[in-house]
Amino acid sequence: MITGKNYIGSQLIANGNKTYKTFNPQLNIENPWIFTEATSDEINLAVDLASMAYDTYKNYSGNQKADFLNAIADEILALGDELLEVYCTESGLSRGRAEGERGRTIMQLRSFADMVAEGSWVEAAIDTALPDRQPIPKTDLRKMLIPLGPVVVFGSSNFPFAYSTAGGDTASALAAGCPVIVKSHPMHVGTGEMVASAVIKAAKQTNMPEGIFSNLNDSGITVGSSLVKHPQVKGVGFTGSIKGGRALFDLASQRPEPIPVFAEMGSINPVVLLPQALEEQSTVWAAQFASSITVGSGQFCTNPGLLLGLKSDSLNEFISQLSEEIVKTVPSCMLHPSIRNNFMTGKKELQQQDEVITLTEIKTEDAPNFAEQTLLSVEGKTFLENTSLHQEVFGPLSIIVQCENETELIAILDKLEGQLTGTVIALDSELGKYTEVVASLQNRVGRLIFNGVPTGVEVCPSMLHGGPYPASSDPRFTAVGIHAVKRWVRPFSYQNWPNVLLPTALQNENPLGISRLVNNKQTHLPIALCLEKPSFV
Amino acid sequence: MITGKNYIGSQLIANGNKTYKTFNPQLNIENPWIFTEATSDEINLAVDLASMAYDTYKNYSGNQKADFLNAIADEILALGDELLEVYCTESGLSRGRAEGERGRTIMQLRSFADMVAEGSWVEAAIDTALPDRQPIPKTDLRKMLIPLGPVVVFGSSNFPFAYSTAGGDTASALAAGCPVIVKSHPMHVGTGEMVASAVIKAAKQTNMPEGIFSNLNDSGITVGSSLVKHPQVKGVGFTGSIKGGRALFDLASQRPEPIPVFAEMGSINPVVLLPQALEEQSTVWAAQFASSITVGSGQFCTNPGLLLGLKSDSLNEFISQLSEEIVKTVPSCMLHPSIRNNFMTGKKELQQQDEVITLTEIKTEDAPNFAEQTLLSVEGKTFLENTSLHQEVFGPLSIIVQCENETELIAILDKLEGQLTGTVIALDSELGKYTEVVASLQNRVGRLIFNGVPTGVEVCPSMLHGGPYPASSDPRFTAVGIHAVKRWVRPFSYQNWPNVLLPTALQNENPLGISRLVNNKQTHLPIALCLEKPSFV
Repeated sequence: MITGKNYIGSQLIANGNKTYKTFNPQLNIENPWIFTEATSDEINLAVDLASMAYDTYKNYSGNQKADFLNAIADEILALGDELLEVYCTESGLSRGRAEGERGRTIMQLRSFADMVAEGSWVEAAIDTALPDRQPIPKTDLRKMLIPLGPVVVFGSSNFPFAYSTAGGDTASALAAGCPVIVKSHPMHVGTGEMVASAVIKAAKQTNMPEGIFSNLNDSGITVGSSLVKHPQVKGVGFTGSIKGGRALFDLASQRPEPIPVFAEMGSINPVVLLPQALEEQSTVWAAQFASSITVGSGQFCTNPGLLLGLKSDSLNEFISQLSEEIVKTVPSCMLHPSIRNNFMTGKKELQQQDEVITLTEIKTEDAPNFAEQTLLSVEGKTFLENTSLHQEVFGPLSIIVQCENETELIAILDKLEGQLTGTVIALDSELGKYTEVVASLQNRVGRLIFNGVPTGVEVCPSMLHGGPYPASSDPRFTAVGIHAVKRWVRPFSYQNWPNVLLPTALQNENPLGISRLVNNKQTHLPIALCLEKPSFV
Repeated sequence: MITGKNYIGSQLIANGNKTYKTFNPQLNIENPWIFTEATSDEINLAVDLASMAYDTYKNYSGNQKADFLNAIADEILALGDELLEVYCTESGLSRGRAEGERGRTIMQLRSFADMVAEGSWVEAAIDTALPDRQPIPKTDLRKMLIPLGPVVVFGSSNFPFAYSTAGGDTASALAAGCPVIVKSHPMHVGTGEMVASAVIKAAKQTNMPEGIFSNLNDSGITVGSSLVKHPQVKGVGFTGSIKGGRALFDLASQRPEPIPVFAEMGSINPVVLLPQALEEQSTVWAAQFASSITVGSGQFCTNPGLLLGLKSDSLNEFISQLSEEIVKTVPSCMLHPSIRNNFMTGKKELQQQDEVITLTEIKTEDAPNFAEQTLLSVEGKTFLENTSLHQEVFGPLSIIVQCENETELIAILDKLEGQLTGTVIALDSELGKYTEVVASLQNRVGRLIFNGVPTGVEVCPSMLHGGPYPASSDPRFTAVGIHAVKRWVRPFSYQNWPNVLLPTALQNENPLGISRLVNNKQTHLPIALCLEKPSFV
């Protein structure tokens, strides 16, 4: 079933001569399939098709787009066990994780389908004309969100389903009305091709225009860079390293016509442990954080890589309990030898810094791609002065910082780079006493968590997955939840436009029955009824 | 009353030694006041104060912010005639225009005040916990918009009130909760200082934190560049040239932490004249467009600089009527000798291009800074091939392009750069026959206008003032209307946060009575009532 070719629209094409394979990290061997990198002609063809598809797809109804998104979900499920097996083979992740992540991917697709079927997401706003206004008449104005154009999605290494081929970026862009060109992640190209086949099948079933979706193979950075620079590409979604995300951001910003890049990048997800909570509940939190640090070999963007506490006996107690729990944890396989190598190198660099103490040592010599989870410790003063300790090491590693006092803790928080999340572990009665700590943390993060762990990103409208740079390249948008659609749209106004030629979302009769802002009041009513009853709410 | 100094917070300071004056273009002489450019110490102090102000101001209630915005409006009005006189002296614009623009500025401030007093603009979203959910419990998540941090606003040359010191950018940023540092436009620094004094007075009256607002003088680009590069600055608003806006965008993108720049730049605002409308109504449209091209010496960003018609007798008739009307128009004074020089140079460059015909000639030799309004004509083929004809000439100039057929017209539209507006002049019955023309135009613009002129930008929620690059640097936001506030905020999530410590907008009881998305339904109800009645709408 895996051909190793690129989907250029619905066609499987591979005219290039650069080939590569994926790797099975559990078995420590290459996988059998041979993949061919897309050529520049294939890239251009994919973008041309996407541009043409945009011209028709942008006018499709919410129900048509919902049918497409639901059909993608159905077709992914229809790939059955074979898809899960390829996923595990290319990622080293467990069958349970594969099923869970597939479930999340399906749920994301269906929640965007529900959103576009309902229709109010376009934020329709209408101001009716006042022909008798003095000194000049007021004209009729109507605004709604419209799609940007073809979007490029870079698959992530750590979520082969949920943030790759038909993951959150793709689902949200298709919901917005943007055709998608996926740059398949080289570590799981086979999984990517299979999921792409499901998207293509769904597109045919639901009569989507040719070119609505393409899936391009890329062993390095050539295909991705060409896509970001292509004049017809209007937006980019990326999940990965700061280096990679920033490179794409720079490319996109330097274009003659700059385009937005939504790069979800690194984060060490600081956790502040307040003293009373540790006094009363250190065992509970030690167990929970040992699990959060090591789950999925620490390969989550919300992995808690930085724990901050105030020096005390209870902090010492917590540290020894956490160390014990971490040593007890059974190591697991990382995604790829290169990711494991980066983890080992990054860990070593931290360990070699002055005054950094390694609290846990385990070895996984018999299992070459397994992660050796690690807890480090350092004094607040040292951490404050040495910002190389602030850098993310992707994997099951956390550094616990022992602060002299609240002032030092706040100074550290103020010096941190932007983060996806910030967590506070505290008694209910304790939190209110640390308002400055919370304020400093809030300035650096996209999401504040009280008494919980940062791993486990709920998919719901109130989720903000993103954060100040470099957690993400644009903290003004979320990568998770239905509001992720806002990344791929722009508002558009019609002035004095004939009712019958307006998009249905803006027509007088409100044929879609959506919620609209009419003369600055939110309502489901048709315009005629709004004007009759000027005092409605 | 004009001191020539900088407002660094509430203090008038001028330690620099670089001084300059403004110019009265009507009298063609320098104005008497001497202004001192801000020093780098003054810039840093203004930003430090703004950062400190942010820490408190971001938590102010909607009512407190509304009081501040309304007080600014009151204090601007309290400056009375003197402010209008300085405005006219520094801009060459008429007393009527000064009054009208002041009215618009006041209205903008009050509409943002109303918005924050009401409070629903924060887009509160709440997903309540499901502790019994399988396989894992769902945690409580709550999201709302929070301010980005200190914002820099660059005053525009052409709107000394409405898009300068206390104009739309400043009003929207203050409404969002962001302190503002204004880089005063060098052509109307006195007007700027007077308006700044009103803002400072209002800030004191309403107990705003020191540093909530500063106003810096800058004769060139030094102060502005320093501000955009300052690490504590988190956003930039700009209205002006493509060259200036792009330079700021590049500076901001190349920062270690990139920040958003909302630059509203150039536009030639294409107008498509369909044949039947010209046949039946050419006199009406000739009069309206002569007025739209020349109003305010053509110094509006929505000035119609490009008219596109299909070759016909009625187009010829329209052209001769329009030429007559334009010649008849009484010329008016431009903002500054340098703006008039740029106009004359740009016009000459267009006139010297091959096959460009000048349809009107007037002279204003006795009035050195007056604009000589001009209509040019060119064949569609020539315009399509020569993109230097697509560039904006700021001032009362329009080029009419005579297309062979609809195909050529569409080819031209497809080749245009991004524009603020696109206008179609057509009979109702005619518009539906030109769907491809409309689709091409829509791809290039932020606002489509039917049977109207692009000048006159209504301030209301449904207005989109912005457009694909280079009309603006970020077409995903409007510079006009209450939704302009969205430029200065980011969404922020609280997970499992104690109710009493949440911002009031997110508390269970909904103490602000705002509209919120609760479990994916929009409602004004408190959480307890939402959970009791799961089927509410």
